[in-house]
Amino acid sequence: MLLALARRRGRGPPGALWMERPRHQGMAKNTYMRWRLPLVCLLWEVAMVVLFGVFVRFGPEADAHWEEEKQKENVTSDIENDFYYRYPSFQDVHVMIFVGFGFLMVFLKRYGFGAVGFNFLLAAFGIQWALLMQGWFHSFENGKILIEVENLINADFCVGSVCIAFGAILGKTSPIQLLVMTLFQVTLFAVNEYILLNLLHVKDAGGSMTIHTFGAYFGLTVTCILYRPNLEQSKDKQGSMYHSDLFAMIGTLYLWMYWPSFNSAISEHGDTQHRAAINTYCSLAACVLTTVAFSSMLQKKGKLDMVHIQNATLAGGVAVGTSAEMMLTPYGALIVGFTCGIVSTVGYVYLTPFLESRLHIQDTCGIHNLHGMPGLIGGIVGAITAAAATEDVYGKEGFIKAFDFTGPYQTRTPSVQGGFQAAGIMVSLLMAFAGGALVGAILKLPIWGDASDENCFEDDIYWEVPEDEESDVYHMHNPDKPASP
Amino acid sequence: MLLALARRRGRGPPGALWMERPRHQGMAKNTYMRWRLPLVCLLWEVAMVVLFGVFVRFGPEADAHWEEEKQKENVTSDIENDFYYRYPSFQDVHVMIFVGFGFLMVFLKRYGFGAVGFNFLLAAFGIQWALLMQGWFHSFENGKILIEVENLINADFCVGSVCIAFGAILGKTSPIQLLVMTLFQVTLFAVNEYILLNLLHVKDAGGSMTIHTFGAYFGLTVTCILYRPNLEQSKDKQGSMYHSDLFAMIGTLYLWMYWPSFNSAISEHGDTQHRAAINTYCSLAACVLTTVAFSSMLQKKGKLDMVHIQNATLAGGVAVGTSAEMMLTPYGALIVGFTCGIVSTVGYVYLTPFLESRLHIQDTCGIHNLHGMPGLIGGIVGAITAAAATEDVYGKEGFIKAFDFTGPYQTRTPSVQGGFQAAGIMVSLLMAFAGGALVGAILKLPIWGDASDENCFEDDIYWEVPEDEESDVYHMHNPDKPASP
Amino acid sequence: MLLALARRRGRGPPGALWMERPRHQGMAKNTYMRWRLPLVCLLWEVAMVVLFGVFVRFGPEADAHWEEEKQKENVTSDIENDFYYRYPSFQDVHVMIFVGFGFLMVFLKRYGFGAVGFNFLLAAFGIQWALLMQGWFHSFENGKILIEVENLINADFCVGSVCIAFGAILGKTSPIQLLVMTLFQVTLFAVNEYILLNLLHVKDAGGSMTIHTFGAYFGLTVTCILYRPNLEQSKDKQGSMYHSDLFAMIGTLYLWMYWPSFNSAISEHGDTQHRAAINTYCSLAACVLTTVAFSSMLQKKGKLDMVHIQNATLAGGVAVGTSAEMMLTPYGALIVGFTCGIVSTVGYVYLTPFLESRLHIQDTCGIHNLHGMPGLIGGIVGAITAAAATEDVYGKEGFIKAFDFTGPYQTRTPSVQGGFQAAGIMVSLLMAFAGGALVGAILKLPIWGDASDENCFEDDIYWEVPEDEESDVYHMHNPDKPASP
Repeated sequence: MLLALARRRGRGPPGALWMERPRHQGMAKNTYMRWRLPLVCLLWEVAMVVLFGVFVRFGPEADAHWEEEKQKENVTSDIENDFYYRYPSFQDVHVMIFVGFGFLMVFLKRYGFGAVGFNFLLAAFGIQWALLMQGWFHSFENGKILIEVENLINADFCVGSVCIAFGAILGKTSPIQLLVMTLFQVTLFAVNEYILLNLLHVKDAGGSMTIHTFGAYFGLTVTCILYRPNLEQSKDKQGSMYHSDLFAMIGTLYLWMYWPSFNSAISEHGDTQHRAAINTYCSLAACVLTTVAFSSMLQKKGKLDMVHIQNATLAGGVAVGTSAEMMLTPYGALIVGFTCGIVSTVGYVYLTPFLESRLHIQDTCGIHNLHGMPGLIGGIVGAITAAAATEDVYGKEGFIKAFDFTGPYQTRTPSVQGGFQAAGIMVSLLMAFAGGALVGAILKLPIWGDASDENCFEDDIYWEVPEDEESDVYHMHNPDKPASP
Repeated sequence: MLLALARRRGRGPPGALWMERPRHQGMAKNTYMRWRLPLVCLLWEVAMVVLFGVFVRFGPEADAHWEEEKQKENVTSDIENDFYYRYPSFQDVHVMIFVGFGFLMVFLKRYGFGAVGFNFLLAAFGIQWALLMQGWFHSFENGKILIEVENLINADFCVGSVCIAFGAILGKTSPIQLLVMTLFQVTLFAVNEYILLNLLHVKDAGGSMTIHTFGAYFGLTVTCILYRPNLEQSKDKQGSMYHSDLFAMIGTLYLWMYWPSFNSAISEHGDTQHRAAINTYCSLAACVLTTVAFSSMLQKKGKLDMVHIQNATLAGGVAVGTSAEMMLTPYGALIVGFTCGIVSTVGYVYLTPFLESRLHIQDTCGIHNLHGMPGLIGGIVGAITAAAATEDVYGKEGFIKAFDFTGPYQTRTPSVQGGFQAAGIMVSLLMAFAGGALVGAILKLPIWGDASDENCFEDDIYWEVPEDEESDVYHMHNPDKPASP
Repeated sequence: MLLALARRRGRGPPGALWMERPRHQGMAKNTYMRWRLPLVCLLWEVAMVVLFGVFVRFGPEADAHWEEEKQKENVTSDIENDFYYRYPSFQDVHVMIFVGFGFLMVFLKRYGFGAVGFNFLLAAFGIQWALLMQGWFHSFENGKILIEVENLINADFCVGSVCIAFGAILGKTSPIQLLVMTLFQVTLFAVNEYILLNLLHVKDAGGSMTIHTFGAYFGLTVTCILYRPNLEQSKDKQGSMYHSDLFAMIGTLYLWMYWPSFNSAISEHGDTQHRAAINTYCSLAACVLTTVAFSSMLQKKGKLDMVHIQNATLAGGVAVGTSAEMMLTPYGALIVGFTCGIVSTVGYVYLTPFLESRLHIQDTCGIHNLHGMPGLIGGIVGAITAAAATEDVYGKEGFIKAFDFTGPYQTRTPSVQGGFQAAGIMVSLLMAFAGGALVGAILKLPIWGDASDENCFEDDIYWEVPEDEESDVYHMHNPDKPASP
């Protein structure tokens, strides 16, 4: 290890410490992170410590006083603690955020460290900030935010929307930009979520609106503002390689398998959670078949494209995010998955090129196809399913429980609920466009250390990259880059 | 992404859209999937939607009417919903099917996309068809199939047997053939399972008979009928490479770690599930040591072979599939694992070559060693353990609960039960041979688009493969294939 | 498969069956494993079967007699079985041991098989021996060890300390040495654990002392005694390559995500487990940001180093191993994680080279930075947190429950408990140094088949390695090694 470290450190041209080498016509940019990145990380983490110290305490079921609390609330056994009925779902969601999103984005041939590493960084910061933001809105009692396992799930959900937006700008931003975006996006997410869940009293268990629609259109707005006209200079690095596609499949499969946990994680206990998992399972299964069908059909040679298999197969999970906990029924879920596999695959083939060439939206991972359109469909399906709800289908008590038609909402009818659901889509879109525009403008400031157009999609800018065999071969194909410095 | 897609699409010789280039003496085959594969996927998925619409509804614990149901059945709390006591097991099994089997088969150097991608496709279709088939046999009430989380586990189990059979024909079949095989195998699986569990009243919690024995001998019969006499033409692609072996270890480890969940997933709640997990854990641990011992011992140079470590270490889980929920005891489990590590490793070294050269059984993954023989052993161990059961060992009530000696079966003795268990092995074998012969004959029809002998084990036939460094090197070794079109 | 096997077997120079080729000035060593490794594996596994046969039985909740047991203990439902409240945690811990540690060590460019394969072997043996050793100390009743799911977790914990020690000697030992070390280390672990938990009545839920401090300093002592003065002869293999670093990130992320399960797995049910998970989650999140900050800050070019991201991000989990179940509070956990990310990263940059050059401690994975120092910090934080406990913070009953101040310990005060906690650190260190010295001396015997200095960090010594493209390129860089034998 010593030797390896020493060897690593000795690398690099001595005079080029903080400037990219100017290549082609591109202007050199200052991508030196040594003081900026540590400063941001340390200051923000100190702020987290202070804010947690002032505000965050254990919720009643995680506090040692629960022994007394239990007696007051007639809880007879420790195994009734909510930990046992949320924690397995939490861990599945946790895997989706860190391994699922992280590895899904490893598909780029020379950006694996950035994909999985920056995702790790922004998610680790994001969950702390989300605990605070969501805590102030939803778990604030007597001046304290009381956290339990459900808060951890919600923080992961919030960060999920940042991971989605990251997909649009993957390979084109510095880690500082990502942290700045995370700070703002988590804040806006919490506001949007509060409007939808508390003010509009909308149901959105799996976050078709709050997570996917918001995250995707936020990210697309940001990437549009950060438009790079000369991005084709790094086109040789925009593709995948054989093994990077296999790594990406790890991400895909974990997202696909655990999505039923995602959509059911914060639903009401009992039949609601049970149903949410089954609906999501069905939708995802159908989605795989139509994705394969259209991936083959839209290729002249009829071959399958890994990009579609890695992404469009997941659209079914996105699109039942709102309706999974409702009585969508298994065949309703199949229809949604069926449709979204098609929409998403067609999007990859036709819409992504169109968005890039006409609207200047450079969407690295195609989040518009995986989260944008399926998220909108999910919101609409949720509005329709809610509007179509009857006491006959849900049972008298189940009906009230499913839509929480209690207190001030006990007079709400299904069709009114459907209208509010539709309003939730609009609010999420507006927040995404406005927030994305604001954050995009901030990220455009020339102080964050992003790479020049010809150095995008390359780990070498921000990471110590081992000089391995593959990169040697790689250098053979890039004769303007010296093989060993 | 746009550019990457555009670049990909532009590849390939213009005149060779649907025919493999004739190479060597091999006859060119039509592997063009553009219309056939989409047609099969779309038609079958439409069929699923229709059948689900007619037949499938939520089971009582997943239906919104559960609020009323609870009161009738004196359920006092939502946390008594079966979701909480099956779902974590379900997710572990789900990971085994999609990541476990998928990545285990990635070991081939140029067939990673096919291994993990086709496994994904057939399993996603298979679980839908299995929900229907198993539903008609086991969960059919008033004209509806009522599904809950236990049905999802059983569907994954059923698909597990298809994944096993896929291992035998890996690299030699088209995706359409795999879908056809899945359709038939799931059907036959459900029939066989019904005969064993309902007619013979056999115990088979982890499926030594229904999943492993049936799946393995079904797959071996199919591959025997699809015998390719000139398969040595693609021998350069039949091996692994360094990183593909590491990917395969991901599959191995997830199968190994989660196997206790697999064998206990549908056992009775309480001590039965608890015991099934412990027995499986013990058997698997012992299996690793004897696999390593024999892998080293049977190599002239005493080196370990990754093929054995990836596969034979799992035989212990297969071989306690029937008896895990019985009072096999931890040391009994160790003995079973001990034995199967040896049997499986010896099988890889001596039996697989023999089966190929003498019986024309080309078994790509060696499923005979991992699922065939250990599955048979598992059936036999189950029969013996059942026959040896006494009220002393199980307790009076535990005895009845363990073998479900109730209703029409309350007069059954352990030795009679042992006899029925043995009959279950025979029935599974017969179903496997007969079904495999039928399906093999169907798959032999020249309409499914399988590759010629010299193009087996190669993703390039059915997948858009990135032209990366590795494949450049690869092409250097295959001078008859142009490096860049 | 046949052909692949046949091809593999035909490799290798015919006259070099059991001797490494002498290269450079190094002396050839006998690394032939063919009889020694099988003998050790088989004999030890037979011993396990015998000892399990004599001693191990199912615990009451896994035994078929539970049906009667339930009635005696007024258990009304099968879902009260402890299986449902420990098993999900067990599976998370299981993944950490086999995938987490296994893949974390795959970072070496040519030692992936050894890292994940030997870890698999030693852990599979270790858990069996740990079930016995820990069983004799903690679950021994009427001459029998009664095992339930909690025993499986504890066995995994015990093996975790061996995996840690393995990290120090990674690449430099034969599989037999690893098995010998496992045998002794598990034994010593169980003794140390007994002293701490039973004699000193110390709390150590996540094992900062018993697992991390003991495991790390044990491993460091062993590697110090096995010092290889000419290890720079294999320095070309001590680094990582691009894809091996990505594989290692799989290990990192699974350790990071599941660490809350690890630290809470054997805590008391209810608020204690709940709290342990939240504290760990917070500590780990903070740790990521300070690791990134210092990784960038300590590099002249300001680039991030994968070694730090892979390892130092986990230090926060180690360092709350003792205090996680106490009322550390979320901000306390953030502070611990904040500190340990810094300490660990600084350790990788400055301390590891120092230990190697001055103290002759060649620590391949840098376990001193990931487990040694954070383990000590964890012990100290635990002692302080215990000493600072008040009835006000814990509640009257929670206070007694948290520290188990019952029976002979009911008069213990927090400050006394803090003193005992501190004593636990000392005992663990002493056991580690003494045990490591003993085991190091045994492993230094020239009979175990370890490789010579220039052949360290190379799979080729103990594994059949496929001759793939990468290794062809690799051989180009190693002209003294023939490309194809």
